[in-house]
Amino acid sequence: MNRSSREIQIVAAIVAANKDLPSHVLIPPGDDMAMIDFGSSRMLVAVDQVVEGVHFITGTSMDLIARKAVARNISDVAAMAGLPIATLACATLPREMSQDIEAELLSAVRRWTAAWGAPLIGGDTTIHRTSSAPLVLSITVMARPRSDGRVLTRSGAKVGDILVVSGSLGGSFHSDGTGRHLTFSPRVEEAHDLVDRLGTSVHAMIDLSDGLGLDCARVIRASSAHCGCTLQARLDAGSIPCNAGVSIKRALHDGEDYELLAAIDPSAPVPTGFISVGKVVEKKVVGSPAVVLVTGDQEEDVSECGWTHE
Amino acid sequence: MNRSSREIQIVAAIVAANKDLPSHVLIPPGDDMAMIDFGSSRMLVAVDQVVEGVHFITGTSMDLIARKAVARNISDVAAMAGLPIATLACATLPREMSQDIEAELLSAVRRWTAAWGAPLIGGDTTIHRTSSAPLVLSITVMARPRSDGRVLTRSGAKVGDILVVSGSLGGSFHSDGTGRHLTFSPRVEEAHDLVDRLGTSVHAMIDLSDGLGLDCARVIRASSAHCGCTLQARLDAGSIPCNAGVSIKRALHDGEDYELLAAIDPSAPVPTGFISVGKVVEKKVVGSPAVVLVTGDQEEDVSECGWTHE
Repeated sequence: MNRSSREIQIVAAIVAANKDLPSHVLIPPGDDMAMIDFGSSRMLVAVDQVVEGVHFITGTSMDLIARKAVARNISDVAAMAGLPIATLACATLPREMSQDIEAELLSAVRRWTAAWGAPLIGGDTTIHRTSSAPLVLSITVMARPRSDGRVLTRSGAKVGDILVVSGSLGGSFHSDGTGRHLTFSPRVEEAHDLVDRLGTSVHAMIDLSDGLGLDCARVIRASSAHCGCTLQARLDAGSIPCNAGVSIKRALHDGEDYELLAAIDPSAPVPTGFISVGKVVEKKVVGSPAVVLVTGDQEEDVSECGWTHE
Repeated sequence: MNRSSREIQIVAAIVAANKDLPSHVLIPPGDDMAMIDFGSSRMLVAVDQVVEGVHFITGTSMDLIARKAVARNISDVAAMAGLPIATLACATLPREMSQDIEAELLSAVRRWTAAWGAPLIGGDTTIHRTSSAPLVLSITVMARPRSDGRVLTRSGAKVGDILVVSGSLGGSFHSDGTGRHLTFSPRVEEAHDLVDRLGTSVHAMIDLSDGLGLDCARVIRASSAHCGCTLQARLDAGSIPCNAGVSIKRALHDGEDYELLAAIDPSAPVPTGFISVGKVVEKKVVGSPAVVLVTGDQEEDVSECGWTHE
């Protein structure tokens, strides 16, 4: 089974399960964060992990491991245009790790969560029983909606929308394990700036964790399901901002950029700091690719361009 | 360094870090759950994990793994006398696991979270890159306080309090990996029943995850710090309820009972379903053991009786 088919199956299973959720679940699983009605408040919440050998290589510093684990979660908050409030950390540590290194990791988690306005308020630590087992660090992040109540999801893109990204893509993960995937800045400020300036003209948002093709397809599928029509994203090959020395193919595939992708109303100006990369159209044919890359009169299905951490 | 000394150091570090927390953190790290002020609501939140080889043996069914992961968290909610609302799950899966087994695990997590009133609203799954890496499943639980606003912590025990437990202890983990540690029922109902009947006469509560000695010492240390005096728990050897075939020593040591331990005002009756196991006294001598087991005229320091999952 290819990745899209499997993801579509998983999403279908989530949607099916979501039907049984109680009414206090305002945004069910399937978006960057879930939202629940908490008495008289609404809360956004998500969990995301980094695993040794998957999200970072053995030998990465505790500081950068903690930074990445926290930053990935804060990036989810940015994608919803939320305001970070607090975090929990759950660490599974190699038995070979010394107490000093363990303290260094905890201290780094505390420092980075505080730096992004989401102080660490709890957690759990377990030491692996088996030797040479990978370090796992998961972070739960809690956030609140903006004071104007606006929360962005993946499912609001409409026919005619312009697709914009907040920065250059590709080349985040160097072959020696270093790179921007460890040092990126979550786009919380940019997200709020976008909503401050464009208000309800921002229709949908996601953070680019897995690659422009794959993440854009998620927006298109969620929005198609929401509007009951068949949408397609048409990305303009000439407009996609690539990092230095990175091909368009890699800009679409590499993932771990943690830039924002938003769908905005065509009547709204593309704000400074954002780059228009394409548009949303309606396809009359069910089964059309969710995302195509348009180069001159050529079209290529790029709905599977990206990578998953599985 | 022995376990108590290390735990005291860790708690001291947490207390030091807690001083920097913002005022919306109403219950800081160090209790069964943290509590935050969420606009006009208060939310309890915690995370806890199960790790293959530590909390369950290889070969345990996905159903029981999911059950234990969820139940441990619901037990934390019980300890605070909270009401479960929602959960997140974060799974790190062995590469050797089939998609069918993965689906079985997810479905079991969904079933158990729903069964305990805390539906699964999000999560993350990663597949280990290395072979034979342990399954890790962490659950984040969110809860709200009771409608009367009462939340119980570890730190409210007072001089003269009676210590009560909600059931028999010891022998939870059988040598073949099975046992009550996989099938226990979190004491949410019992916790609320206790508070309903005794109101403000319930001063402190904890769930017995690591053993009566160790967990009772946590209550005593947190309460001593809170009241600025040196408390001691005196457990009466003849009163401790042991499971069939289990010695007092094992009842104190084994852990994974997930019964409640509460400190109640001596003027309150010990409610049906709870067993009095000792009392809280003040020691004038700093450095006195936090918990002693009293057998006739003999006293034994049992502050370190229990096991940690490290």
